Amino acid sequence: MKPVALNRPTSLMQADIPGNHVRLATEEPLRLDCGVELGPVTVAYRTYGTLNAERSNAILVCHALTGDQFVAETHPVTGKPGWWDLLVGPGKVLDTERYFIVCSNVLGGCMGTTGPMDPNPETGEPYGLDFPVITVSDMVNVQALLLDRLGIEQLFCVIGGSMGGMQALEWAVRHPERVFAAVPIAAAARHSSQNIAFNEVGRQAIMADPDWRHGEYLRQGCVPTRGLAVARMAAHITYLSDSALHRKFGRRLQSRDALSFGFDADFQVESYLRHQGSSFVERFDANSYLYITRAMDYFDIASEHDGVLAKAFAGTSVRFCLFSFTSDWLFPTIESREVVRALNAVAANVSFVEVETDKGHDAFLLDEPEFATTLRGFLDGAGKHRGLAGP
Amino acid sequence: MKPVALNRPTSLMQADIPGNHVRLATEEPLRLDCGVELGPVTVAYRTYGTLNAERSNAILVCHALTGDQFVAETHPVTGKPGWWDLLVGPGKVLDTERYFIVCSNVLGGCMGTTGPMDPNPETGEPYGLDFPVITVSDMVNVQALLLDRLGIEQLFCVIGGSMGGMQALEWAVRHPERVFAAVPIAAAARHSSQNIAFNEVGRQAIMADPDWRHGEYLRQGCVPTRGLAVARMAAHITYLSDSALHRKFGRRLQSRDALSFGFDADFQVESYLRHQGSSFVERFDANSYLYITRAMDYFDIASEHDGVLAKAFAGTSVRFCLFSFTSDWLFPTIESREVVRALNAVAANVSFVEVETDKGHDAFLLDEPEFATTLRGFLDGAGKHRGLAGP
Repeated sequence: MKPVALNRPTSLMQADIPGNHVRLATEEPLRLDCGVELGPVTVAYRTYGTLNAERSNAILVCHALTGDQFVAETHPVTGKPGWWDLLVGPGKVLDTERYFIVCSNVLGGCMGTTGPMDPNPETGEPYGLDFPVITVSDMVNVQALLLDRLGIEQLFCVIGGSMGGMQALEWAVRHPERVFAAVPIAAAARHSSQNIAFNEVGRQAIMADPDWRHGEYLRQGCVPTRGLAVARMAAHITYLSDSALHRKFGRRLQSRDALSFGFDADFQVESYLRHQGSSFVERFDANSYLYITRAMDYFDIASEHDGVLAKAFAGTSVRFCLFSFTSDWLFPTIESREVVRALNAVAANVSFVEVETDKGHDAFLLDEPEFATTLRGFLDGAGKHRGLAGP
Repeated sequence: MKPVALNRPTSLMQADIPGNHVRLATEEPLRLDCGVELGPVTVAYRTYGTLNAERSNAILVCHALTGDQFVAETHPVTGKPGWWDLLVGPGKVLDTERYFIVCSNVLGGCMGTTGPMDPNPETGEPYGLDFPVITVSDMVNVQALLLDRLGIEQLFCVIGGSMGGMQALEWAVRHPERVFAAVPIAAAARHSSQNIAFNEVGRQAIMADPDWRHGEYLRQGCVPTRGLAVARMAAHITYLSDSALHRKFGRRLQSRDALSFGFDADFQVESYLRHQGSSFVERFDANSYLYITRAMDYFDIASEHDGVLAKAFAGTSVRFCLFSFTSDWLFPTIESREVVRALNAVAANVSFVEVETDKGHDAFLLDEPEFATTLRGFLDGAGKHRGLAGP
């Protein structure tokens, strides 16, 4: 796919996003957790590798808050490599010569799947805040419709990090018969108070931007780029770790020999953060950010099982492999351990590895040999049980 | 003092702040670290207790980023108790029947001491961004002028938490002959990369607010309240801890039985954060926030000592007592340990206690019996050495 320059958001139509698009829920609308019926729903997705004759080698990759379907190829907006290029490809851990990899942009997203940027069929104008509030469960239900369309009855594996890990857990709970193995990485069974707080700061930053126009900015021809950039900057700190920031930047100055005694970016870490903010607004929609963070806040598996997480997994036949990272303070190890404890309580098949790293939450996107090796081993083992050919 | 209703910032003059005000650097201006000469400088301060005949019982309390001189009395703007009412008063740890407590609003502040709200003598208009960028060292030098005026040659003790702890360290390094004992609490010898990053998010939130007007909002009759509120919200999360937030709020809903599927404050933690933001803007100036956070970023004691922290303390006769809190991730224990290590390297007199608590950075403001008891013991012991009468 050739990179395209999308000048967001005025010139960007969701339909302009390259790759696969499919219209689902065309005959019967999807009933969302909030009670609203939504349909038809467009889903933008990408696949890598080939579905085998038994249709037993599909792996659904679930992306995180600001990720998308461009897992293992050049991103059409940024021109950067796919976000999981390190892990997905021929001979890689998610081996596209063995597995059929599927990844779709989540419901509420801004890379082709129906979301608040899209026209509201009732008005023909972008939804804005008229888009219904969605949940991780709604996202998963849309993915299930996509798999129906692709003729995949059961996933060999569902995998994802962060909000992708929430989706992997939700898949295992909502559709256990459709999941052979699940790999939630750097995730949790419910969004913590601190994480809701950080999400709220991001939302308030967006909503404080006068160009947000109560969500109607697309209709009014502006974009809340300043607010969205601040939201991204605050969030980005939470993806790293104190020690990673110290190692990468310390107190080093940016293109100068001495302090400027001003408010320019004296320190490299300031310059880096500003860049994270300004580049993010080129590829992401502010309202999508509101909706997707809200879906994360609402995530709480135990809440529908009398507050007892183990009940959600009772009798599960899914094989689980969980990962956490020692320096991840957004989804600390204790959150993964709670899931493991619940799975152990129902005698589920579960592996768990806490990977030693200073890279923080973002470690799941980075070169972490222990993570990669363990994941490869888990997939190989599960593949044997599933009757997949070895590497 | 009777609480006054200050309708910030349009009606607030710095001179309206009740309490003591003194004009310093009237004959010779103060030379700031940035090279600018500033003077005269107004300092707003409060004292509690009585200076003894030997002038040997003075304790300088240094306040944190958003603190002020109202340590142990009703705050004139908020009507709330003094920020260290728990520790300062008759019979309390900082016993006003034994010690003479002094606390001044820092240079660059907005509670009466010269800062960016004040009129620039050259134009008669509020300084805004024409105010010079200040450092923690500049703050301390202004405090030294205040002590000269009060006739205090040597402090019995200088004490403070967070940025107040930075000032305590700076005092011990810059003016060791004027300090008998120093108590830096939840502080560090230099601001970390992560903390600079969080400060930068706050500044960007303020500067992104169109009502900031490149710092000229007072001249233009508006206030960047939305940006300042977002800055406060982001910072406030860093003052607490994941477990404290979990204990206080968890995922409990705010005045409702079910999720609203909207962007109102569904969760208590959201409502709490919003309140933190909206109440803060009633009492704090946005430009002061920029300047004071910048001073923290610039703080790095070792930088003027060939990068070797121990050199800054060589030959010191100051008695140190440092405190950190186990759940403080803004100024984690490791930062205090670095100071302790440097002090040990020069055989300084140093005590250090890491207090077990889940309350995060803000623990120094809260009821922490181990902290209070240890601090009392340290002050008693140091008082004996200084020849102060026992309790």
